[in-house]
Amino acid sequence: MKRTAFFISDGTGLTAEALGHSLLAQFEKIEFERVTVPYIADEDKARDMVKRINKAAEVDGARPLVFDTIVNSDIRDIISTADGFMVDIFGTFLSPMEQELNSSSSYTVGKSHSINHTGSYERRIDAVNFALDNDDGARTRQYDEADLILVGASRSGKTPTCLYLALQYGIKAANYPITEEDLEDQKLPKALKPHKEKIFGLTIEPERLATIRNERRPNSRYSSMKQCMHEIEEIELMYRRERIPFLNTTAYSVEEISTRIMLATGLKRNR
Amino acid sequence: MKRTAFFISDGTGLTAEALGHSLLAQFEKIEFERVTVPYIADEDKARDMVKRINKAAEVDGARPLVFDTIVNSDIRDIISTADGFMVDIFGTFLSPMEQELNSSSSYTVGKSHSINHTGSYERRIDAVNFALDNDDGARTRQYDEADLILVGASRSGKTPTCLYLALQYGIKAANYPITEEDLEDQKLPKALKPHKEKIFGLTIEPERLATIRNERRPNSRYSSMKQCMHEIEEIELMYRRERIPFLNTTAYSVEEISTRIMLATGLKRNR
Repeated sequence: MKRTAFFISDGTGLTAEALGHSLLAQFEKIEFERVTVPYIADEDKARDMVKRINKAAEVDGARPLVFDTIVNSDIRDIISTADGFMVDIFGTFLSPMEQELNSSSSYTVGKSHSINHTGSYERRIDAVNFALDNDDGARTRQYDEADLILVGASRSGKTPTCLYLALQYGIKAANYPITEEDLEDQKLPKALKPHKEKIFGLTIEPERLATIRNERRPNSRYSSMKQCMHEIEEIELMYRRERIPFLNTTAYSVEEISTRIMLATGLKRNR
Repeated sequence: MKRTAFFISDGTGLTAEALGHSLLAQFEKIEFERVTVPYIADEDKARDMVKRINKAAEVDGARPLVFDTIVNSDIRDIISTADGFMVDIFGTFLSPMEQELNSSSSYTVGKSHSINHTGSYERRIDAVNFALDNDDGARTRQYDEADLILVGASRSGKTPTCLYLALQYGIKAANYPITEEDLEDQKLPKALKPHKEKIFGLTIEPERLATIRNERRPNSRYSSMKQCMHEIEEIELMYRRERIPFLNTTAYSVEEISTRIMLATGLKRNR
């Protein structure tokens, strides 16, 4: 039986979604139709939402799960009249938190993904621009400014990781591809030497690397298993020789790679 | 008085953080020291975590707030012995959800930000590569493949938005800068014409645009107030004339711009 799950918010809905996905992931046997509805910020929209939930209850023959992060309690009260199973974040936790903190909630809408005025949003966007300007070894003269320099074989996951670190944490991450020429020299590329303490290495299983490279350049030397094995072996040797901390990205998403790098390096978010 | 807030997870901690930040944003008068601790996945780490929470309680003179999304109930039980105020997501919601769904939880750790095997992770990474390859009008021959083509003045927020749409939603978004030459012709740039239904416009207050451009090229014609006003006026005229849906990005973060575009276009996530 299919169940509908709504993620409802007066803001972007990203928090309701993240929470809802975590909880729904625990019920693998059930098929969920997932619907995110952001910007439910007035009573008219809330009433429309109630109709939508009730409609889904009728169609599914079972009440939908409703994950909401709506701050305004009047709007929440309207939503709660719907024929749904409510997972109400603010309704559940805000009042005990008010007691604990001995402070009343300011009922601020959609703060967590908005531009605030502490400059942290600008830092995130600056970091995205930094990642783009310093992608793939394009420049090395801004490395003084970098929080982190990711190194690794071509297509080992450096660029998406740098972009995620920028967007999520405001971390300025450059990336530098280790090429065959670099490996022949058996030492750290010259441009990296003065910044050794900022370097973090990525590695990846040669099989996975070959698969990824084959999508870009099918049946090339670049994407051959032999070449991938050779590069990864040499690169890992270099990491060990130079005592560069590194991570095997094969089984990890960009979110996992990024949080593991944050943990391993002790970098703090700039936001 | 400062209070410490811990965001603890057996996975990346991103969900615990998102939820915790939303709740803490409601208490603007209180200063929180925010600490994210990912990958608390065994009992030893949980016991260390208890010590860390108790230490913070001692130093602060008040018990920390602990937001956790730990799936394993043995690990959660250990954490709950700490001297903290527990906001326990799974402990609170999982058991009522089990009843509602008439299904037991599979206690799957860290699913929400991991690589699954449905191909959705690959789609997100493909979308990142697509955004990079099709940034800033670099190419137009892949527009057939695009889910969305963002247009707008230089520095109106197109690139970070495309990257966020790719990472978060797996949306393949190209972007095309509207230049002065395009505006002189008083019509839609030729490369965009065959893809009109995929186009979404960004605009921005001229003052904000001038500020952003000044950081890149100070005191240039490009960043002058006069130039910015002219471009924005002409671009908005074009949007209206060509009936291109558009959004003013001035007050919005990339998260907000992206969710608003998803809502306005009816695009669905590819994950």
